[in-house]
Amino acid sequence: MIQILPLEGVAEVTLGTDLAAVVTDRCELENGDVVVLAQKAVSKAEGRIVRLTDVEPSAFARQLAGDDGDARHLEVILRESKRVLRARQSFVIAETRQGFICASAGVDASNTPEEGTLVLLPDDADASAARIREGIRALTGRDVGVVISDSFGRPWRQGTIDVAIGVAGIPALLDLRGTKDARGHELRSTQIAVADEIASAAELVMGKANGIPGAVVRGLRLEGDGTAADIRIPEDRDLFR
Amino acid sequence: MIQILPLEGVAEVTLGTDLAAVVTDRCELENGDVVVLAQKAVSKAEGRIVRLTDVEPSAFARQLAGDDGDARHLEVILRESKRVLRARQSFVIAETRQGFICASAGVDASNTPEEGTLVLLPDDADASAARIREGIRALTGRDVGVVISDSFGRPWRQGTIDVAIGVAGIPALLDLRGTKDARGHELRSTQIAVADEIASAAELVMGKANGIPGAVVRGLRLEGDGTAADIRIPEDRDLFR
Repeated sequence: MIQILPLEGVAEVTLGTDLAAVVTDRCELENGDVVVLAQKAVSKAEGRIVRLTDVEPSAFARQLAGDDGDARHLEVILRESKRVLRARQSFVIAETRQGFICASAGVDASNTPEEGTLVLLPDDADASAARIREGIRALTGRDVGVVISDSFGRPWRQGTIDVAIGVAGIPALLDLRGTKDARGHELRSTQIAVADEIASAAELVMGKANGIPGAVVRGLRLEGDGTAADIRIPEDRDLFR
Repeated sequence: MIQILPLEGVAEVTLGTDLAAVVTDRCELENGDVVVLAQKAVSKAEGRIVRLTDVEPSAFARQLAGDDGDARHLEVILRESKRVLRARQSFVIAETRQGFICASAGVDASNTPEEGTLVLLPDDADASAARIREGIRALTGRDVGVVISDSFGRPWRQGTIDVAIGVAGIPALLDLRGTKDARGHELRSTQIAVADEIASAAELVMGKANGIPGAVVRGLRLEGDGTAADIRIPEDRDLFR
């Protein structure tokens, strides 16, 4: 059996908030638990905030924004992007500097700390996850996994699901290549993005508007180690860029 | 708290297996539980099996199969497809007759009931989910949700995750459009594909090779109703066809 425990009663996260302490204050962790934290909380703790009045938009940002969008907002999205895959009016799907492909390069204007600010993705969410994992170990002696999650849309299917943008202490992919079924056929689905599935499972208790910035997933029996970078698909294997 | 309970000790599912009885035999269900069943089990119970020796491949199937693929296998994939989106050697991504976009139009050669057979997606997995839900209600009086799950790859990210291909008794999408954050901004992620997240959560206890064809997700508080068809994205809103 797996349990998913919401981290409730967490006060507003601000620059410098010790998320390892926030988690350990609210949950008696066990070895093997996986702590899932929403990207927004991690970004705020790391000060990944931009003030729109500090932003001078480029000509391309003005063009993308058109008459309805905010060119400064588009400028921030472009600065976070390695490449724009699609743009329709001011809606942009981009590959982020970290290698994730998502709407607005992960730049978010909702639930920001202040009017007129935007929240960016953590600079290196795998490193953030590793730091929080070490922080929890230092505070409690427990060996846990950490997943940093964000809500991504995807082609072909409506709605967002939460996926992993940072991973530490667990594998991101379960590799079944070479595993055979009962009849000796190799399994069709040879790799499972288990970190993404954990992020989605945690979202079920976190919600969007109710101030629950994380969850603990208990009862997984995962061995090994990985990072969210493992989930990025090599360009030559991706049929949809 | 949410709990995910694996359905263990299920014998091989064959044509006519009563999945509602299988579930209720193995778990004391409660109102509001969501029963997740793997597509493979549902397809087998519904006899969605094709024997390769019964298949005469078309010229297009022979062309796609090339020298290494099995043209009969490709023929079955094409028969299940409304449209082929991408093909590389004998690897095909297609829109199924049901409107899902996935590898091989959901046709699977692993864990089939017999050598030389392929398992197809249920003809209408939303209807399958509704039938199983009614079967459970008839057997126990309990009002549960049912999700039929399958493992799908996706663009831009390695590995498969489980998603919902059939839904009954719960919403497939949670619609937050119009919901504001604490500062009055509309939420960026306006719809959450909760049925997909439930499918992914259940996969964490099901695995691929260990014969656990389903799980019960307990503790969700979902209101309303939907189908997996709700998750199909309208073509004009999809930037990636």
